[in-house]
Amino acid sequence: MRDFSTSHDALSINTATLRKQWPLDRIIDECARRDIRAISPWRDQVASVGIAHIERQLKDSGIKLSGYCRGGFFPAADAAGLRTALDDNRRAIDEARRLAAPCLVLVVGSLPGALEGTPAYLDLARARSEVRDGIAATLDYARDQAMPLAIEPLHPMQAADRACINTLEQALDVCDELDPTRSGALGVAVDLYHVWWDPKLEAQIARAGADRLLAYHVCDWLAPTRDLVNDRGMMGDGVIELKKCRRWIEDAGYTGYAEVEIFSDTWWQKPGEEVLDTCIARHMSVV
Amino acid sequence: MRDFSTSHDALSINTATLRKQWPLDRIIDECARRDIRAISPWRDQVASVGIAHIERQLKDSGIKLSGYCRGGFFPAADAAGLRTALDDNRRAIDEARRLAAPCLVLVVGSLPGALEGTPAYLDLARARSEVRDGIAATLDYARDQAMPLAIEPLHPMQAADRACINTLEQALDVCDELDPTRSGALGVAVDLYHVWWDPKLEAQIARAGADRLLAYHVCDWLAPTRDLVNDRGMMGDGVIELKKCRRWIEDAGYTGYAEVEIFSDTWWQKPGEEVLDTCIARHMSVV
Repeated sequence: MRDFSTSHDALSINTATLRKQWPLDRIIDECARRDIRAISPWRDQVASVGIAHIERQLKDSGIKLSGYCRGGFFPAADAAGLRTALDDNRRAIDEARRLAAPCLVLVVGSLPGALEGTPAYLDLARARSEVRDGIAATLDYARDQAMPLAIEPLHPMQAADRACINTLEQALDVCDELDPTRSGALGVAVDLYHVWWDPKLEAQIARAGADRLLAYHVCDWLAPTRDLVNDRGMMGDGVIELKKCRRWIEDAGYTGYAEVEIFSDTWWQKPGEEVLDTCIARHMSVV
Repeated sequence: MRDFSTSHDALSINTATLRKQWPLDRIIDECARRDIRAISPWRDQVASVGIAHIERQLKDSGIKLSGYCRGGFFPAADAAGLRTALDDNRRAIDEARRLAAPCLVLVVGSLPGALEGTPAYLDLARARSEVRDGIAATLDYARDQAMPLAIEPLHPMQAADRACINTLEQALDVCDELDPTRSGALGVAVDLYHVWWDPKLEAQIARAGADRLLAYHVCDWLAPTRDLVNDRGMMGDGVIELKKCRRWIEDAGYTGYAEVEIFSDTWWQKPGEEVLDTCIARHMSVV
């Protein structure tokens, strides 16, 4: 297993971690100042500053992307909604390519409208079928553009509204179906927050292998957890066995970044400098 | 599939649903008044009134138990804690037997101390091993007393603090290991709130079969959900496909009660009469 204690070369910052403190250009500046070598930005953060500016800033700073957030949200209430979703995913691929992302992360969606409290239908199997079809349709374009798609299984507590792919096993089943040759065009983003609890995690990480492990996200699960979305913990403050999981990931062949993604009303209230400095310290000590 | 629209003979009330409104003796009276034929009480509710009184009241009213809540919480910080847990589970079996429960429901526990925010260790595999050993030890006494144990897989969002058995597949793996002959001494309590999201749910219910399906709990998953424990929905107010799941359960051979268990700060604030009347109406219309 790689030794993280002597440098933070393998650290990436998912920029949602600082979305309440700074715009993306400032986040990039602050990362560069700390020799952080990679980020994973969100589309709305890129759009707020302007993609041309971000593209230039990344080139100037030498900061790489560990992923691009995000595509997905495939299920729709009707055919027009589905077309809109597919168009949007193509645009996400274009942006990811322009910023030289190694993959586009997919939060696949679930019951359409559930996020707003008004699901258009109640049929989880249908949503899963639409997700499969949406990924299949998007994969054609992604292959053309040489942009790998990383399915992110989301925690089962987000199964109704954000993603109906909820285990690594389920995500890998979709990968095996749509990309049986393990071409590299389709894989997974393993975010420990979503999968740490899974009794099959070690086995499924091994099954994924380096071909399928496109991104690796860390934070921590707090006990107790106060909110289903925005109460993630800083690494070391919760119960996830971070080093054990990283051993599994690296034993499977993963050599990429450990990307810190913390949605937290607590950490969003702290100064951005403190958040980044803490990310570096915890990366070197507990990740 | 049974027709629930013409009677509520198959309705059971988990008495936690009314724990903020009434003591258990009043709950039993109110259920009897509505021809509700079964309840599933919690140990603390029984103890508050006195088990002798409850025993007599159940006999007089003809109300049966659909289960007894609960045993479990096996992992402990040390050997003394483990002995305490095992002793407590034996007492729970004795009480369940005295009240003629068909099974003792097990919420198996997880990282000891995590429920209080101070986990004694961070090792989910160890907790799972201790749970397995705790069930095995308790099963001997349960067999002696002819009291089936029902492992309840809890939602993965409760994996740190309440139960490290988080899928039906995982629960059934434990059953197969500890009771390979399917003797009836060990099975599962399927609470849809915990397992509705699982892509393998239908297959695992079929795997369980009538031998292993000892209890069936219903409520609903609200979108959005505001709290990880106490924001369960009344049947019909959320996204769970209740009838589809009941078909799976009954196709697997289950012929028992549909037990309503709603932990909800919202429903706990309503008059108990309204809650019970709503449970009956929803049981007949959407369960």
